[in-house]
Amino acid sequence: MISGATVAQHNSRESCWIIVHGKVYDVTEFLDDHPGGSKIILKYAGKDATEEYDPIHPPDAITTNLPKEKHLGPVDPSSLQKTVKVVTSVEKVRKEKLNRRPLIDEILSLHDFEAIAKEVMPLPAWAYYSSAADDEITNRENHVAYHRVWFRPRVLRDVNKVDFSTSLLGTKTSMPIYITATALGKLGHPEGEKNLTRAAGKFGVIQMIPTLASCSFDEIVDAAIDSQTQWMQLYVNKNRDLTKKFVQHAESRGIKGLFITVDAPQLGRREKDMRMKFEDSGAKVQNENGEQVDRNQGAARAISSFIDPGLCWADLKWFKSITKMPIILKGVQTWEDAVMAYDHGVAGVVLSNHGGRQLDFARSGIEVLVEVVAKMKEHVPGMTFPNEKFQLFVDGGVRRATDVLKAVALGANGVGIGRPFLYAYSAYGQEGVEKALQILHDEFEMNMRLLGAQTLKDVVPAMVDARGLSSHVVSVPGDRLYESNYESMVGARIREEQAGKVAAKL
Amino acid sequence: MISGATVAQHNSRESCWIIVHGKVYDVTEFLDDHPGGSKIILKYAGKDATEEYDPIHPPDAITTNLPKEKHLGPVDPSSLQKTVKVVTSVEKVRKEKLNRRPLIDEILSLHDFEAIAKEVMPLPAWAYYSSAADDEITNRENHVAYHRVWFRPRVLRDVNKVDFSTSLLGTKTSMPIYITATALGKLGHPEGEKNLTRAAGKFGVIQMIPTLASCSFDEIVDAAIDSQTQWMQLYVNKNRDLTKKFVQHAESRGIKGLFITVDAPQLGRREKDMRMKFEDSGAKVQNENGEQVDRNQGAARAISSFIDPGLCWADLKWFKSITKMPIILKGVQTWEDAVMAYDHGVAGVVLSNHGGRQLDFARSGIEVLVEVVAKMKEHVPGMTFPNEKFQLFVDGGVRRATDVLKAVALGANGVGIGRPFLYAYSAYGQEGVEKALQILHDEFEMNMRLLGAQTLKDVVPAMVDARGLSSHVVSVPGDRLYESNYESMVGARIREEQAGKVAAKL
Amino acid sequence: MISGATVAQHNSRESCWIIVHGKVYDVTEFLDDHPGGSKIILKYAGKDATEEYDPIHPPDAITTNLPKEKHLGPVDPSSLQKTVKVVTSVEKVRKEKLNRRPLIDEILSLHDFEAIAKEVMPLPAWAYYSSAADDEITNRENHVAYHRVWFRPRVLRDVNKVDFSTSLLGTKTSMPIYITATALGKLGHPEGEKNLTRAAGKFGVIQMIPTLASCSFDEIVDAAIDSQTQWMQLYVNKNRDLTKKFVQHAESRGIKGLFITVDAPQLGRREKDMRMKFEDSGAKVQNENGEQVDRNQGAARAISSFIDPGLCWADLKWFKSITKMPIILKGVQTWEDAVMAYDHGVAGVVLSNHGGRQLDFARSGIEVLVEVVAKMKEHVPGMTFPNEKFQLFVDGGVRRATDVLKAVALGANGVGIGRPFLYAYSAYGQEGVEKALQILHDEFEMNMRLLGAQTLKDVVPAMVDARGLSSHVVSVPGDRLYESNYESMVGARIREEQAGKVAAKL
Amino acid sequence: MISGATVAQHNSRESCWIIVHGKVYDVTEFLDDHPGGSKIILKYAGKDATEEYDPIHPPDAITTNLPKEKHLGPVDPSSLQKTVKVVTSVEKVRKEKLNRRPLIDEILSLHDFEAIAKEVMPLPAWAYYSSAADDEITNRENHVAYHRVWFRPRVLRDVNKVDFSTSLLGTKTSMPIYITATALGKLGHPEGEKNLTRAAGKFGVIQMIPTLASCSFDEIVDAAIDSQTQWMQLYVNKNRDLTKKFVQHAESRGIKGLFITVDAPQLGRREKDMRMKFEDSGAKVQNENGEQVDRNQGAARAISSFIDPGLCWADLKWFKSITKMPIILKGVQTWEDAVMAYDHGVAGVVLSNHGGRQLDFARSGIEVLVEVVAKMKEHVPGMTFPNEKFQLFVDGGVRRATDVLKAVALGANGVGIGRPFLYAYSAYGQEGVEKALQILHDEFEMNMRLLGAQTLKDVVPAMVDARGLSSHVVSVPGDRLYESNYESMVGARIREEQAGKVAAKL
Repeated sequence: MISGATVAQHNSRESCWIIVHGKVYDVTEFLDDHPGGSKIILKYAGKDATEEYDPIHPPDAITTNLPKEKHLGPVDPSSLQKTVKVVTSVEKVRKEKLNRRPLIDEILSLHDFEAIAKEVMPLPAWAYYSSAADDEITNRENHVAYHRVWFRPRVLRDVNKVDFSTSLLGTKTSMPIYITATALGKLGHPEGEKNLTRAAGKFGVIQMIPTLASCSFDEIVDAAIDSQTQWMQLYVNKNRDLTKKFVQHAESRGIKGLFITVDAPQLGRREKDMRMKFEDSGAKVQNENGEQVDRNQGAARAISSFIDPGLCWADLKWFKSITKMPIILKGVQTWEDAVMAYDHGVAGVVLSNHGGRQLDFARSGIEVLVEVVAKMKEHVPGMTFPNEKFQLFVDGGVRRATDVLKAVALGANGVGIGRPFLYAYSAYGQEGVEKALQILHDEFEMNMRLLGAQTLKDVVPAMVDARGLSSHVVSVPGDRLYESNYESMVGARIREEQAGKVAAKL
Repeated sequence: MISGATVAQHNSRESCWIIVHGKVYDVTEFLDDHPGGSKIILKYAGKDATEEYDPIHPPDAITTNLPKEKHLGPVDPSSLQKTVKVVTSVEKVRKEKLNRRPLIDEILSLHDFEAIAKEVMPLPAWAYYSSAADDEITNRENHVAYHRVWFRPRVLRDVNKVDFSTSLLGTKTSMPIYITATALGKLGHPEGEKNLTRAAGKFGVIQMIPTLASCSFDEIVDAAIDSQTQWMQLYVNKNRDLTKKFVQHAESRGIKGLFITVDAPQLGRREKDMRMKFEDSGAKVQNENGEQVDRNQGAARAISSFIDPGLCWADLKWFKSITKMPIILKGVQTWEDAVMAYDHGVAGVVLSNHGGRQLDFARSGIEVLVEVVAKMKEHVPGMTFPNEKFQLFVDGGVRRATDVLKAVALGANGVGIGRPFLYAYSAYGQEGVEKALQILHDEFEMNMRLLGAQTLKDVVPAMVDARGLSSHVVSVPGDRLYESNYESMVGARIREEQAGKVAAKL
Repeated sequence: MISGATVAQHNSRESCWIIVHGKVYDVTEFLDDHPGGSKIILKYAGKDATEEYDPIHPPDAITTNLPKEKHLGPVDPSSLQKTVKVVTSVEKVRKEKLNRRPLIDEILSLHDFEAIAKEVMPLPAWAYYSSAADDEITNRENHVAYHRVWFRPRVLRDVNKVDFSTSLLGTKTSMPIYITATALGKLGHPEGEKNLTRAAGKFGVIQMIPTLASCSFDEIVDAAIDSQTQWMQLYVNKNRDLTKKFVQHAESRGIKGLFITVDAPQLGRREKDMRMKFEDSGAKVQNENGEQVDRNQGAARAISSFIDPGLCWADLKWFKSITKMPIILKGVQTWEDAVMAYDHGVAGVVLSNHGGRQLDFARSGIEVLVEVVAKMKEHVPGMTFPNEKFQLFVDGGVRRATDVLKAVALGANGVGIGRPFLYAYSAYGQEGVEKALQILHDEFEMNMRLLGAQTLKDVVPAMVDARGLSSHVVSVPGDRLYESNYESMVGARIREEQAGKVAAKL
Repeated sequence: MISGATVAQHNSRESCWIIVHGKVYDVTEFLDDHPGGSKIILKYAGKDATEEYDPIHPPDAITTNLPKEKHLGPVDPSSLQKTVKVVTSVEKVRKEKLNRRPLIDEILSLHDFEAIAKEVMPLPAWAYYSSAADDEITNRENHVAYHRVWFRPRVLRDVNKVDFSTSLLGTKTSMPIYITATALGKLGHPEGEKNLTRAAGKFGVIQMIPTLASCSFDEIVDAAIDSQTQWMQLYVNKNRDLTKKFVQHAESRGIKGLFITVDAPQLGRREKDMRMKFEDSGAKVQNENGEQVDRNQGAARAISSFIDPGLCWADLKWFKSITKMPIILKGVQTWEDAVMAYDHGVAGVVLSNHGGRQLDFARSGIEVLVEVVAKMKEHVPGMTFPNEKFQLFVDGGVRRATDVLKAVALGANGVGIGRPFLYAYSAYGQEGVEKALQILHDEFEMNMRLLGAQTLKDVVPAMVDARGLSSHVVSVPGDRLYESNYESMVGARIREEQAGKVAAKL
């Protein structure tokens, strides 16, 4: 056992030890390789870094990345100085708000989780989850694009019993949705991605495990129940050996689908996340002292330097050689690439722009879906959608079961939902995710009935009018002088209480 | 006569008696069948429930639904404890506002009633009347869709006398409108639906009586004058015998049209209405005590559990067998179903999305009208619209006579108006409905003249430009950084009073 | 000479005398015929009504409408009680604001006049001038429709000298505009329409004299200089003899064009104007006393009851028989009526919706222009526009010379401008109108240069892109829950002053 | 050496001497020729005018424009009265804000510079830089037009290395952009245009030197490093000899391209700039004294009176005769003029509307680009874009590298950026411009990767969807009465702190 005092002496760039989860590590030589920069580590040189470490890294990140000989062994807990943790006033307000959350029964839609989460989450967590590329236009477009698709519901069909279960990549799911992969789950809640696993298990829906999870891959798999299906999202490492090990381990743990992310050769600029760094007054002080400031580009960049921007079509052959899992390309955004994917023999594509977090002005998945279905039908005469052999998934911007049903009508097999579940557990933990799934379930049941659809097979293209979907309207800027002159109509109003009488009494 | 003290002993789930309109009922065995849940009844176990009962149920609801042997007889009024009714401060403010309503002469348009009603109605009533499905987008679209139809008025036609009367299902009406069916009329005013009946009688317009009226069906019929025409809106009961009894009774009372609602196999989620329940602090207390809270889904759900989601085309034959009234399908939303309705030999359809209260992103009736007219003309070569044999009605979003005239130009026989009349009587009682009808009458007269139309036959398709009607534009989300940087133009301004002089004196 | 005391005795419905401009009139029998209702007259029974009378009537209205024997002769001024005029606090504020108007040199565009006029005009005047039909949508559409027309300017053309004069109905004008007819000019300024006459004379532009002017027709003609051209706008009286007298008198005074209004068989509902009446607390008091309240429908209705709603195409022949002035139909709104007008041999049409004051959802003149030009070319092969023989005018919504140039490019001979000139003189008198004309002149000069046009002949259809002009877009209503959750991007900001330091000192 | 006292005697219109940069000039005869009017000079009659002179004029303006004999020689500095400069409170606030600028590392996008510059620039500078024509609609359209172009990014391409350098008019540039010409650079920062020169040199991008620079032409050229390329923007003088001298001097100094401005025969009305003049209370005082006020039309008009509105196509031959520099027409706005330019043999055109500062409702460069490329391909079969021989440039509204890449995809060789760099140095001097270029560089790198483009040759038309680009949508004006009645959806909310408890304590 190493004493706290000994650790404390290694508090410099020359010799830098840190404590994580009660173990001591010598990270001196690792400092310059740390994706998040050396400065953040040096802040904890000679100290316990667990609290800062936890939400950003899986538990095994340090043991995996650091050579065995740098694992110096357990620290003597009794020798550690008790640090009195100062609770900031911001944090106090946040905790106090947690107590004033509405009852979960008052949550009526997925929107409600976001409204509450925004108030009760730590600000950096909210900034990381909600942020998107540049002006966040694609992020918002993802949602509003669904508003360009309108229903053509049928009446007088027997909808006593409606069934909206389906199967995705061969697995049964209770609804045509899945929980898509999102990074750094513990930022919002200490149980992180496991909240999603457990709720998904209860509701019979599939969870896609992210490469950049806060929980370790095995923790997440272990949290699943026997009958439960999980998929894996993969950022391909420049070091293909690590990728191979990761993929084959996943297959051995029973993962049923490999979703290779293809829209992120480099992680996008997310200014909300980046700006959060500068709120920290520390950065400013350092600069005034003349030291170089980290070009801190937010959490996203810090954790993603291993991703290979050289990944290309030719690599698909290798992936097929190392796994039998169905391979799906996540992040396809044109019919041309969907056709190429089909010709390369993958099991499907996710039409996605990464939740608007990568390229601003990328089109929404639902818009791309219409184009892909039309062109695939030209490419493969006789092909129909949704298709079993070449599955189309869509994600981004979904908040209502109606959004999902629009995608299904237009040919999608299933729809991924991400942020809403993060907000659900950031506000209410696992119970929040369960409530979210329950809300969707209720919405599906009602909307199937209102559409006149007994099963998803009845949700056909003629049930929607999507003619305006690819219309990217930006209005002519307003005439501000005219507008400031125009006086709005004012309707009838309740009379003012008689000020006269009051005045008379004074 | 039963004494109040006796009733008071039956105040539990084991034995639950309540008093309604001076009669005692044993509802113990009915508790679990109550559409609104047992909890709300138990709150009045052993007590007088009349005040809570009244706006939600027709007077005969309890006698109809409870077996004769549970009707225990009259309570002894003198034995009842006088409950001192506490007027809440919210209620006081509301009543005080009622006194400050503008004179009815100051009401210039249907919008004005809504502005006043919102202020002077009990909040739950307003929530129930105004609420709609999900994000209420269809609700608002119903109104704004009319703004995509523009007039092409003709000039230099003799419009000294204009006549906008017409006949609907064989009955003369003074204007091409009718008062459509809406539920729970007493929420807004103690006279409920009878306000509508009496005003309709005076103005020679038709009223459609709702299944879910607060007044009993017979009360509403009795309130009519001799020459007056009424229609009936029907939610079809799972128990067809009850439906048959209801329909045949209506026919026997002289009802002239049977409007079967086909867009509501399940009543929609109306979050404004649902959220209202949680404003009641009682709900929270119960939860803190660990008891289960009702999944209270608002007034709409509570009262509608009897509706049959299995209703289908095949049932139409049966309806024709039990009544000679013309049958109209209310809630058709595609040309396909309009054609099926025609082929099934019904007398017409109402192109309606239930005031936006059922499926969000259903299209507006006025938009569906254009599609139906075009396709019906293909289906039945030579058919013209408006058509006597197969009548097209539209409802939803109407606020001006111009809205109605647009629908007429596009082929509608008549247009249903609902909420505006509810707001009219919630603000001013029967007088409000009369004023609303007077306003519409004046608007019709003027706008017929301005259109250059002597009769409704002159209101032809060429009088409108509806080319943009089916365009569902959602703009690209704005660039918030750019917008926050852009400084609006500022025009010339009145100079500030000379602050300098004032400052000098200080 | 009649004494004030004598007049004062005739202060009832039974015998009602009033004084106007120092003369006494017996209006007892006229009370029920007064277009504005009897109540407003009875308010002045036995008193001097001049101040109320003046802005609403031409000086000769009373002498023209009242039989000679009711003209009782001059009042003895010395016998009149000096009424101490109470200046209301609202009026005080308004007058004080007049003192703080910006220098006229600070007025940079026509918008600026409106901004100032709104502040310094009496409120009823502003309400009357600015009001429009129903929701004022056509009123605003008139302006924004111009924003759907974009320029295609040409470069490298010698624009040292540019000439934007033209001729309208055979008269030279310094710019392709005219001052169109608007009613009740004295509401905004005591000199009323004469402000327009004098400024038009100085700038060589044509003024159209309104039937409902506050100044008498002859006053306005007398205010013109020799070389000046004036047109006349005509509301056709049910009594054609009066119309004939009026038209022939106009011709004899040198009027060069007769513009017959065809879009106003009944004057529109203008709620801003109507609501103004109820702001007057008097109305409420009367009602509380149980007396009947006038259905006061605003200034517009009061003054227009003489207009003939029976006017029709057949009447045109008669008009041609009584005058040699060119006849133009003002208020044509479809190509069908433009073609009929052409076939009836009139000299032109004004494509106008009466400034949005008549039928809401009538299309803008600029939109109708495109349709008329296209269809007239089909109707008369080889016809070109602008055309000398059949002139097209447009009015409504114009605020910039660019608006006018767009209309010219699309085929208009000239463009009418109304409200901006009213605002100009309401804020600055005649000088304001001159400044407005100067601003337009400067804008024409600059914009001709920037368009690459030496004369108006160079302002051709290819200089504009008007493809979107007839697109009546109404966006899908927004998703308010999503919007309230979305947090806008926030850019870099100036740091707060160091609150810490300040706090430390406290 | 002339004494200050002597100068001070020449303080009138009859004899007016001023001091600039320590030299005395007799400007008496020049007073009426001064483009900015005589009044502003007379304000400094007999005094030192350097501070007012500097940001508006190049240093050599006075020596160039005034005959040698009026250069009276140096003033004796010791004889000058030390004027105590009064720092206004506005200026104090501004300077104080400068101290509170965020660190330059906190600047994340070009938008951020504008946000900061707006706060820390002198107001007249901001007004001059940001102002645009009329209602500034084209100014804003320039930016938002880019929002109508959406990406179609490709995936699984090796984007390890991306190269976005190109060559413009034969010169290599590190990015497909250049710094375009803008006037009066010293208004925002004392080093003026030299800030741009130096940063451009470091980043290998081309700077276009404006005719109306605050620094002299030679100062700007001298500030460049050896390898650096500069272009020249030319306003053609009515006096062609001056133009010839200027052009040939530029060529002799190594300028590589001559951009002749063709969209400004007269400089536009820029109301923000014009209004700024009236903020100066001096103007009002003069007027009250009855003196004539300058029709001050802002900085733009004052400095541009020499520009020849007679410039035309025929002049191009002469330009080719006096220089061998490639000639480009700046301000072409239609395909017709692009074709004419091509036929006249120039090297390219800038599709530009002068940053929205000239003709309001001129279309954006990016919109015109699509039209020009299509029509040029018809005009010259086989021609491809971007083209080496006939280069297309676009400017206006650019804020992101994605904007530039959209233009490149649609056929532009390069894109000009102006205001953002002015804001960059107005906020942070040269370092700001460097940071701006660094941000663009980072954005290019990332977005090339996200588009799946290794070089600019991969940025092809199929990578964008620009179908909606020429759609000039202006929505139907809203129904204000409906909107004011509609109550927005309100989601779940954090409960209020228990007011009850607090109240209980009171």
